[in-house]
Amino acid sequence: MEKIDLIVSAPHFYTMTGNGVGYMADTAMAVDGGKIKAIAPAGEILKSYSAHHLIDGKDHLVLPGFIDGHMHMTDGLLRGLAQDTSNWMMHGIAPFQLKMDEQGAALGGELAVAEGMAAGTTTFGEFSNMNPALLKFMDKTGVRCQMTVKIREAEERIYDPGELYVFDQGLGQTTLNQCLDAHDHWQGAGNGRITILFGPQGPDFVSKQLLLKIRRLAMERNCRIHMHVQQGDRETAQMVNRYGQRPIAFLDQMGYLDAHLIAVHLTDAKESEAALVAKRGASMILCSGSIGIIDGIVPPAKAFQDAGGNVALGSDQAPGNNCHNIFNEMKLTALFNKILYQDPEVMPAWKVLRMATIEGAKALGLHEEIGTLEPGKQADFITINLATPSMAPVYTEPMRNMVPNLVYSARGNEVSTVVVNGQVLYENGHYHTLDLTKILERANLYAQQLGPRAADTFWKINGANAQLMRTHRL
Amino acid sequence: MEKIDLIVSAPHFYTMTGNGVGYMADTAMAVDGGKIKAIAPAGEILKSYSAHHLIDGKDHLVLPGFIDGHMHMTDGLLRGLAQDTSNWMMHGIAPFQLKMDEQGAALGGELAVAEGMAAGTTTFGEFSNMNPALLKFMDKTGVRCQMTVKIREAEERIYDPGELYVFDQGLGQTTLNQCLDAHDHWQGAGNGRITILFGPQGPDFVSKQLLLKIRRLAMERNCRIHMHVQQGDRETAQMVNRYGQRPIAFLDQMGYLDAHLIAVHLTDAKESEAALVAKRGASMILCSGSIGIIDGIVPPAKAFQDAGGNVALGSDQAPGNNCHNIFNEMKLTALFNKILYQDPEVMPAWKVLRMATIEGAKALGLHEEIGTLEPGKQADFITINLATPSMAPVYTEPMRNMVPNLVYSARGNEVSTVVVNGQVLYENGHYHTLDLTKILERANLYAQQLGPRAADTFWKINGANAQLMRTHRL
Repeated sequence: MEKIDLIVSAPHFYTMTGNGVGYMADTAMAVDGGKIKAIAPAGEILKSYSAHHLIDGKDHLVLPGFIDGHMHMTDGLLRGLAQDTSNWMMHGIAPFQLKMDEQGAALGGELAVAEGMAAGTTTFGEFSNMNPALLKFMDKTGVRCQMTVKIREAEERIYDPGELYVFDQGLGQTTLNQCLDAHDHWQGAGNGRITILFGPQGPDFVSKQLLLKIRRLAMERNCRIHMHVQQGDRETAQMVNRYGQRPIAFLDQMGYLDAHLIAVHLTDAKESEAALVAKRGASMILCSGSIGIIDGIVPPAKAFQDAGGNVALGSDQAPGNNCHNIFNEMKLTALFNKILYQDPEVMPAWKVLRMATIEGAKALGLHEEIGTLEPGKQADFITINLATPSMAPVYTEPMRNMVPNLVYSARGNEVSTVVVNGQVLYENGHYHTLDLTKILERANLYAQQLGPRAADTFWKINGANAQLMRTHRL
Repeated sequence: MEKIDLIVSAPHFYTMTGNGVGYMADTAMAVDGGKIKAIAPAGEILKSYSAHHLIDGKDHLVLPGFIDGHMHMTDGLLRGLAQDTSNWMMHGIAPFQLKMDEQGAALGGELAVAEGMAAGTTTFGEFSNMNPALLKFMDKTGVRCQMTVKIREAEERIYDPGELYVFDQGLGQTTLNQCLDAHDHWQGAGNGRITILFGPQGPDFVSKQLLLKIRRLAMERNCRIHMHVQQGDRETAQMVNRYGQRPIAFLDQMGYLDAHLIAVHLTDAKESEAALVAKRGASMILCSGSIGIIDGIVPPAKAFQDAGGNVALGSDQAPGNNCHNIFNEMKLTALFNKILYQDPEVMPAWKVLRMATIEGAKALGLHEEIGTLEPGKQADFITINLATPSMAPVYTEPMRNMVPNLVYSARGNEVSTVVVNGQVLYENGHYHTLDLTKILERANLYAQQLGPRAADTFWKINGANAQLMRTHRL
């Protein structure tokens, strides 16, 4: 018997291999050195291997860990401060975000990791200013992190509707240097768990010249570009006013649409524009919850898929979603698209589960490492408790009901175990690598101090939430 | 000091009184004899009363318990068997539902009560065949139950698309008698926790003659009629083919649209039809999750409210929603309507929280007893843990973020305590009046037996889920 690190056995595995969900009954998975060594009928595995750590997944199903492709975890302390409002960016989030410092940003990231991990997220696709404290935290907690360092040339302040952003070349160069520096120091850290991407904030926030420079540098480093694209009518207006072109046409003309690009949102893209991005080989990240709250819009992810593109899911930010929970994103993606097309067969459960796992991994360029459970891949997996009302009862014939229940009934708290690179990070409500109580205490203290600092701007802007406060509706 | 049964104190109360959310800071509520005796600053209450049972809601907020206005809990064992399919009723649920017996129906109800209670539901608005075992269970567990006994004249079998239902007068009379019998024996049982309504299944499932008889009997007993109305194009087609009228026009001509009617779904109603129902004084129950999955449709609840009507939320059934969780219904209602109107300010958090509490109570005719926290009402309340990632951090100025976080971030597992009529039913993950482990064991055993019995019809119909099984997508 070969000695290995970990064996997990369960009556139900969804490996996500092949074109479907890769179901296997009564299976066990052997894990060693952070990787999946074998996955086979439980009897076989238990005959061939012995492990120091055995996870007995009785009454559980096993899945690849979820991939949250696009997050602004550094806004994590602003949960619940920007929704039910038009002009989300300037009237909703800005009064608070402008008062946030780097320490608060890192702490927001800690809260987001705690939240996402307990709901089965193993890969955190952060998009933010370079924040060494947050990267150190993610390294320490053992999660997988695809960190996109934000590059921005537009001055950060509150703009009037229609006002063209003012570019500051110094800011552009500083943030680009931060990205390059992060790539130098962090790419491949934590046994390969941490990767760094280039993050121009959007075609509207960065000059054409800098966009081209970023592309050249990213290609030199064989690194993807992760960018908000056509994320709303605000962006479209900026581009049309500045260049006379809609964002996707502008990017296409620049040669920006290819396999190096991960395009986030496409909120304001027509189906034909989304299809063009897909055909050029780029991938897409869909943030259903966030765009639903912020814009009341269902982005054209189905058109993107129909054109052959891969789509990952993303939870975006806590102020305007308002949670980091891939169960939420799967459910909303399935439901919003049924509603968009008035067709209950659109975006079925198996499809959104693939978006949360293998199709997400492909979209982010991580499919060689994660996204399915198969030998040679990293051991990122979760177990789901079936002995809980939201997952009960379990049918295996004539149809299995576990995938629909994962997507339409589960909420996140059904997750029992979270494993990344073979290391158990979370088990039965307990975090092994972070201290939730301390994070919550510090988060609440920070919020108590931040709120009063934002008050002047909040009341002066007098947006929807100020009016809701005045009328006793909050 | 007056001795009373229970005091609950917390830093945040949302009483839902007035036109908003009735926020009160640092408050306590005195409960005696199942009713709210006083609600005031914590210091005052603790000076005036002493209680055998003290709930210290440190790090919590207190809310009225949620009202789930429309459920088919007796389908609870069919979770996850009917979604991602067109022709939900005949191709999705029927193969399984037709093999369900009364014992399975009652057990499904037990599972649904366990699920809903842990997610803060205190009032269960069941709509089903008379099921004495389920009523006894609800009485025993101490939940509030508004039971609508289904009256149906159409033969229960699988109909072809477009086939007119065949009426069976005997079935109509039998089910009406069951309803009358339930009203005789159960109305006001459990210290008033249990009420019985008349439930013609829909204008298409009951003949005109029987509809009129039901109305006469309900008015004699001063009892409301709870009925599916214009719940889909299937119903509309039945009515147009049989009577040459759309359902709402037909009901209006019969004088059916008044304050006695609780109209469920209105899925296929135009905004003008919904507004007419509201103007006639009837109320509406909106089942966002269920209608989203089954039809890909957002019913016209906003038009109903704009016309002055009250709307309650309902979770409908586990096969086609697929959960009994009012947090889910609040979130989906807010988001679906933002998407329908492409407006992020539509259906804000405070509004859907009112629908889950006081406006729901008004819609169901229970607003004298429940729906707000104020002296004289029944003590149906829940406490929500704020020391958990999905509710953190807490802001109190310049705006409070707790209501948005309840609606957009919370999932249900944040509920710490559930109290009905002053009795604690659920506390920190433990049920006081039901045995979850036993319910789950029995539910799984039943499912193992039911599945094979449904297999022949399932494969013969060869609906969407049969095809998903064949292609390894479940």
